[in-house]
Amino acid sequence: MGSDVVEPGTVRPGGRTARVRASVLQATGDAIAEHGLIGLDLADVAARAEVGKTTVYRRWSSTYGLIADLIASMAEDSSPRTDTGSLEGDLKANARLVATTLADPRQGPVFKAVIAAATCDDRTAEALRRFYDVRIAEWAPCVTQAVARGDLPAGTDAREVIAAVSAPLYYRLLASGAPLDEAAADRAAEAAIVAARAGVYARGR
Amino acid sequence: MGSDVVEPGTVRPGGRTARVRASVLQATGDAIAEHGLIGLDLADVAARAEVGKTTVYRRWSSTYGLIADLIASMAEDSSPRTDTGSLEGDLKANARLVATTLADPRQGPVFKAVIAAATCDDRTAEALRRFYDVRIAEWAPCVTQAVARGDLPAGTDAREVIAAVSAPLYYRLLASGAPLDEAAADRAAEAAIVAARAGVYARGR
Repeated sequence: MGSDVVEPGTVRPGGRTARVRASVLQATGDAIAEHGLIGLDLADVAARAEVGKTTVYRRWSSTYGLIADLIASMAEDSSPRTDTGSLEGDLKANARLVATTLADPRQGPVFKAVIAAATCDDRTAEALRRFYDVRIAEWAPCVTQAVARGDLPAGTDAREVIAAVSAPLYYRLLASGAPLDEAAADRAAEAAIVAARAGVYARGR
Repeated sequence: MGSDVVEPGTVRPGGRTARVRASVLQATGDAIAEHGLIGLDLADVAARAEVGKTTVYRRWSSTYGLIADLIASMAEDSSPRTDTGSLEGDLKANARLVATTLADPRQGPVFKAVIAAATCDDRTAEALRRFYDVRIAEWAPCVTQAVARGDLPAGTDAREVIAAVSAPLYYRLLASGAPLDEAAADRAAEAAIVAARAGVYARGR
């Protein structure tokens, strides 16, 4: 692979390379929302993005390359956390954001495709783990602030609490097919809070 | 499709059809453990199972057909729950069983492949939901018994509690890549118990 290979963080925003990448990743998301992972095809993505096929093959080389870069770009564009001032408010906002994202007719299929691709491709799995690292790091302060306020036990593992909020919602998306509604989101947040207060996520237990 | 199509529950155990199915599904699991979902190929499965290619194509028709039938057979052969007499004992046994299964070098890749295939194929998604229905129904009595003993609030949704035990472990398998060890299993069980005792999974809240 040559110097055209896109590495996350190396593309100057607003430059031609960045514009091509934005178009191609937008087209990748569109294609997945329409046809799912199985229908994803580099030539179709190139046509949708109005970018030369050769460019897409050279820079992304495979559907996995596209998907790994799509989730990398989602990590880069990751939105800031909500700060409501209370642990319950913060974690419910987080849970509702996750549920809304996974239930979204465009984002839901994208997450399913990324997770499915990650089971088959190490580079996609690594990009997915980085995405969750970014999201968890973004939301972890609401837990560390709650510890500082005395609302959670000292030593509570902030990352474990944030992951505990998301886990039941991903289980609904991927396993049970149960609805991703506000009730499910609130329940996920409440369960994580109750368990965190009881010290389940405190380190060194 | 003709009368050779295998419908779960319709195959006489010990008959030739059942033996062929057992060999083909064993070979499907072997192939997935070796190469993952992407490497799954009907001709390869037929060769491994020492069954004619035509038989495999006619009965299962696609890799999705194989995967959906594999998870259906896992639901049929589903092992009985552990009954320790205490909610904590029962749910920790369940959590450790889930963690051990997902961490297993053969079973882990099979679950990843089934979940990935379910994101692309409705029949596989339906077979996967049935598998979880069977597993959750098998373990739900440990929750209803705890309600009867007064160890959990009346109206606790047993299926939600069992799903809450599994969810963080599936999140580790599919999203975070965090280890599926005994500590993770025990933490998943403890969090579900604390939340259930607090009434988070009680209906009509």
